Amino acid sequence: MIDFITFCDYAGTFAFAISGIRLASAKKFDWFGAYVVGAVTAVGGGTIRDVLLDATPFWMTQASYLIVTGLALVFVAIFRKYVIRLNNTIFIFDAIGLGLFTVVGIAKSLEYGFPIWVAIIMGTITGAFGGMLRDTLINEVPLIFRKDIYASACVMGGLIYYACQQLGLTPAMTQFIAAASVFITRAVAVRYHISLPVLKGEE
Amino acid sequence: MIDFITFCDYAGTFAFAISGIRLASAKKFDWFGAYVVGAVTAVGGGTIRDVLLDATPFWMTQASYLIVTGLALVFVAIFRKYVIRLNNTIFIFDAIGLGLFTVVGIAKSLEYGFPIWVAIIMGTITGAFGGMLRDTLINEVPLIFRKDIYASACVMGGLIYYACQQLGLTPAMTQFIAAASVFITRAVAVRYHISLPVLKGEE
Amino acid sequence: MIDFITFCDYAGTFAFAISGIRLASAKKFDWFGAYVVGAVTAVGGGTIRDVLLDATPFWMTQASYLIVTGLALVFVAIFRKYVIRLNNTIFIFDAIGLGLFTVVGIAKSLEYGFPIWVAIIMGTITGAFGGMLRDTLINEVPLIFRKDIYASACVMGGLIYYACQQLGLTPAMTQFIAAASVFITRAVAVRYHISLPVLKGEE
Repeated sequence: MIDFITFCDYAGTFAFAISGIRLASAKKFDWFGAYVVGAVTAVGGGTIRDVLLDATPFWMTQASYLIVTGLALVFVAIFRKYVIRLNNTIFIFDAIGLGLFTVVGIAKSLEYGFPIWVAIIMGTITGAFGGMLRDTLINEVPLIFRKDIYASACVMGGLIYYACQQLGLTPAMTQFIAAASVFITRAVAVRYHISLPVLKGEE
Repeated sequence: MIDFITFCDYAGTFAFAISGIRLASAKKFDWFGAYVVGAVTAVGGGTIRDVLLDATPFWMTQASYLIVTGLALVFVAIFRKYVIRLNNTIFIFDAIGLGLFTVVGIAKSLEYGFPIWVAIIMGTITGAFGGMLRDTLINEVPLIFRKDIYASACVMGGLIYYACQQLGLTPAMTQFIAAASVFITRAVAVRYHISLPVLKGEE
Repeated sequence: MIDFITFCDYAGTFAFAISGIRLASAKKFDWFGAYVVGAVTAVGGGTIRDVLLDATPFWMTQASYLIVTGLALVFVAIFRKYVIRLNNTIFIFDAIGLGLFTVVGIAKSLEYGFPIWVAIIMGTITGAFGGMLRDTLINEVPLIFRKDIYASACVMGGLIYYACQQLGLTPAMTQFIAAASVFITRAVAVRYHISLPVLKGEE
């Protein structure tokens, strides 16, 4: 079980890092810049969460996240001609990461004594704000606020987490169902091109 | 008195959130993205302040700020055709918020044992950095550094706060005068199109 | 010795602030906006480091950094026609600052009990992330990830710091050699137009 969670954690980190590295590469960043954008994408959401919770940022106590980001850099550099063919696999890893990161963010916030509504926000920040920082760094309007169901899948997973808790499910069960619901919401939204409506402004 | 402060706090939060939501809407953000930009505008400055002071971010201990942001989203969505006619009212709310947020930021920093010059900076961050984050998120050069008197009204209010303290006024009196001076500085600057001079560069 | 370090600290702060103020001026920021961008460039990296280390941001306990930033603003405003002729001097100050900030970031992180790999990252953040925040604020793609050897000079200095430690050199010697190596790496890279390779993407 722990092995499975660790696998999801690394797969998600890898996919998040790759999304940052590819966009940085498209903007002609050098290797180091691409690594930084990859790392910010992979660990940025969890870092904001930990700063808000007043916890030591998770990647400062365990080197594996930055090592996985380095592997993602090497992967993109070596297999750059083939990466595009792996888009589906990368998407699945990314969605797995989104689900896991959301649940990890919620569980950690509850551990720190915050109420469920704060925890759901922290889960969403963990899952979605790395991508927001990535887009800010490469000087684009954050994609996650304009296309597909992304951050809102995290909120949905958070509400399901809460529902499972109220139904008295075990923590492991609750976390699995919540993570799976984020994954499914995201996958269904992308498959069927479901987006949230644009907010119509005054013009 | 507490009711009056609470009213100003909510009015300011509402106006700040609306400014973020309107700009997000102009950039075709979806509902969720518009909500995030509204929330960042409304609570972003105070969050940076709290992180720097090593305090728990204020909106994590009281849900009302994010609820008011939600009301602002509904308000823009429903009354979008009429919002533009309410520009004057929204401006007044925004200026009230600026004054109150500045004073709250100063008072909290002093409570945490920092000297007055740090407190004035924190008051300015509380008032002005939400707008800065908003403009960064929607990928624009921050408006507050280029137009009108905005952040500098916070600094002015901070100096008046300090002067009132030195004159031995009560805390309540000091805070009222400082907040009012931010409001008046801002209102006069916009009414008479007063801006700080642009910094002339080398060519 | 302390006087020499203090001189380097102020020279670096001055040069970092000037780089922010000049870019803000080119974007038509007003005086206040230019000051904020200058300050963010000068103290932004160290602030991110201190927030991650859970330390009180260094400029909140000593006013000199923000005063030096103010002097940089006055300097640019008064000598704007001549600043461009001082580019070489400013570059040297900037490289000195980069070396010192990196070493200060490493030493502080080790003091806080973090392992050397975290300390090297913190040194790099201290040296390079102020410039990243600057470019984000003025709405440009961060230069440091695209041109010259900048952040990677900090990493290099960090590795040399570690090597000196392993060789049993005194802390003062270690810090001097590490800072000098950052300075030299940066100077050589700019003199001979050495850049890291761009990461080639899938296109």
